Amino acid sequence: MRSYAIIGTGALGGFYGAKLQQAGLEVHFLVNSDYEHVKKSGLTIQSKDGDFQLTSVAAYHHSSQMPACDVVIVCLKTTHNHLLAKILPDLLQPSSIVIVLQNGLGTEAEIARSLNPHQQIWGGLCFICSNKIAPGHIHHLDYGEIKLGAYGANYQAVPVTPMMESIAADFRRAGIPVLLSDNLLLARWQKLVWNIPYNGLSVVLNATTDRLMANPATSALVERLMGEVQVAAAAYDCHIADEFIQTMLDYTVKMTPYRTSMKIDYDEGRPLEIGAMFGNPLAFARDRGVDLPSIEMLYRQLQFLAHN
Amino acid sequence: MRSYAIIGTGALGGFYGAKLQQAGLEVHFLVNSDYEHVKKSGLTIQSKDGDFQLTSVAAYHHSSQMPACDVVIVCLKTTHNHLLAKILPDLLQPSSIVIVLQNGLGTEAEIARSLNPHQQIWGGLCFICSNKIAPGHIHHLDYGEIKLGAYGANYQAVPVTPMMESIAADFRRAGIPVLLSDNLLLARWQKLVWNIPYNGLSVVLNATTDRLMANPATSALVERLMGEVQVAAAAYDCHIADEFIQTMLDYTVKMTPYRTSMKIDYDEGRPLEIGAMFGNPLAFARDRGVDLPSIEMLYRQLQFLAHN
Repeated sequence: MRSYAIIGTGALGGFYGAKLQQAGLEVHFLVNSDYEHVKKSGLTIQSKDGDFQLTSVAAYHHSSQMPACDVVIVCLKTTHNHLLAKILPDLLQPSSIVIVLQNGLGTEAEIARSLNPHQQIWGGLCFICSNKIAPGHIHHLDYGEIKLGAYGANYQAVPVTPMMESIAADFRRAGIPVLLSDNLLLARWQKLVWNIPYNGLSVVLNATTDRLMANPATSALVERLMGEVQVAAAAYDCHIADEFIQTMLDYTVKMTPYRTSMKIDYDEGRPLEIGAMFGNPLAFARDRGVDLPSIEMLYRQLQFLAHN
Repeated sequence: MRSYAIIGTGALGGFYGAKLQQAGLEVHFLVNSDYEHVKKSGLTIQSKDGDFQLTSVAAYHHSSQMPACDVVIVCLKTTHNHLLAKILPDLLQPSSIVIVLQNGLGTEAEIARSLNPHQQIWGGLCFICSNKIAPGHIHHLDYGEIKLGAYGANYQAVPVTPMMESIAADFRRAGIPVLLSDNLLLARWQKLVWNIPYNGLSVVLNATTDRLMANPATSALVERLMGEVQVAAAAYDCHIADEFIQTMLDYTVKMTPYRTSMKIDYDEGRPLEIGAMFGNPLAFARDRGVDLPSIEMLYRQLQFLAHN
């Protein structure tokens, strides 16, 4: 049986890890602030797919106490990525696979630079609404799919392997839909099409998605920001169709009013994931000589507003 | 003796009009919300140049009751400019001069379109810190200079005339410094170099000037916005030197923390002067095929935040 390590037992890691354990897999949880609670009382999952409780979980406060695992899933916020250089070596054996379930761009490359070049690194994009509402208590509201792709040097496309199929099967058995991609970079740019405008503007303008779309000035601005993501992606041979952008716009108009994850972080006084979500995409674009004036302006506004 | 009409007896019109009357000139004040108070108790000026009181002023609630005057000074906020088409004809004789003391761009041209083509229109830029702190009570904190230029069709440059010198002499006798310019359009673009970044960002980021300048992300953004004003001005053959921009930046860093006029309007729930200060400059630039992405983004953000 494959063993899994969850780095960061919050809204994301707590949910996916609990689902994997409930499906019978071996899961080891690295827990920060909730460690005492989770060690004693386990995890409570309240989910639209069915509530459940894990009264006993393998919880750890320090990665040094954890065993090496077959699959190591990074569920930290990107604002804590500086901790990874210390955590990851404790959990890896040469055949281990690191899966980065984070927003933004560039984390896989950063991790790759710090590890043995043969270590496998995959990236995953999570389409999920999930919140931690109390220590060890996750509320999963909707969705849950993971789009998964292998990281190749410089984000080159990598064909889907049998190992990816096999791990995807573990997730699916646990009730987590997985879509496998041979182009992680395209998947990341595609997710940024939504994340950059809505996360950024929701913080700067103190607004939910519905209000941003209801005002013609801001809906035009959202579209312009999406267009800049499209241009940056194209500079990396990642084709994002105009129809994809239109679908994102239509989808958001139809969504229930939504407070983005960055807005929640901002309202809660937590650090904002602006490096991975704005700084890195801007750096990628700059490397190809592409100027993204609107995204850059939004980034600067967020840097001003960020809690440091 | 020359007669003056003041349209809008607030922080600006109340102050300048009171100074002119105190110097012995004939001044007629059009007063809106403070009419009853000003009619009964006059105007109180609290100024760093010396406090004074005018116990009796010629106050009017409707322009139809006012006499035509030699000089008609428009001191309304630009958000009330739709009222001018009704007010101005009441106050003008063929030789009257209209002086527009407003921020932004384009008001002179709008007024010119509604008047006899031979009516003289001048524009003035006020460098002043002044607030209305109670009905008929103006607090003049600092500065006060007016930069004055005649409006020529399509903002073509117009040489300074003896009449301009003569009216400037009235102002100076009243203790109001006046600088005469033969290039009103350049003067307007120059003032926008300061007004666009600081007014806009102070509202969007809820910040005073000192905080915007203390953060490297926003001070870089201020500089970028100023650069776009410079580009737009250049498209109209108005040369703004890099040194001018540097001077504005340095000057603002040294200033006491300042809450911009647009931020005050925003905090007080009043309409924002975004049409004259953002919409019109953007339209001017567009007419010359110039794209101003950062200013346009700021405008859209302000349109979203504006009280309508």
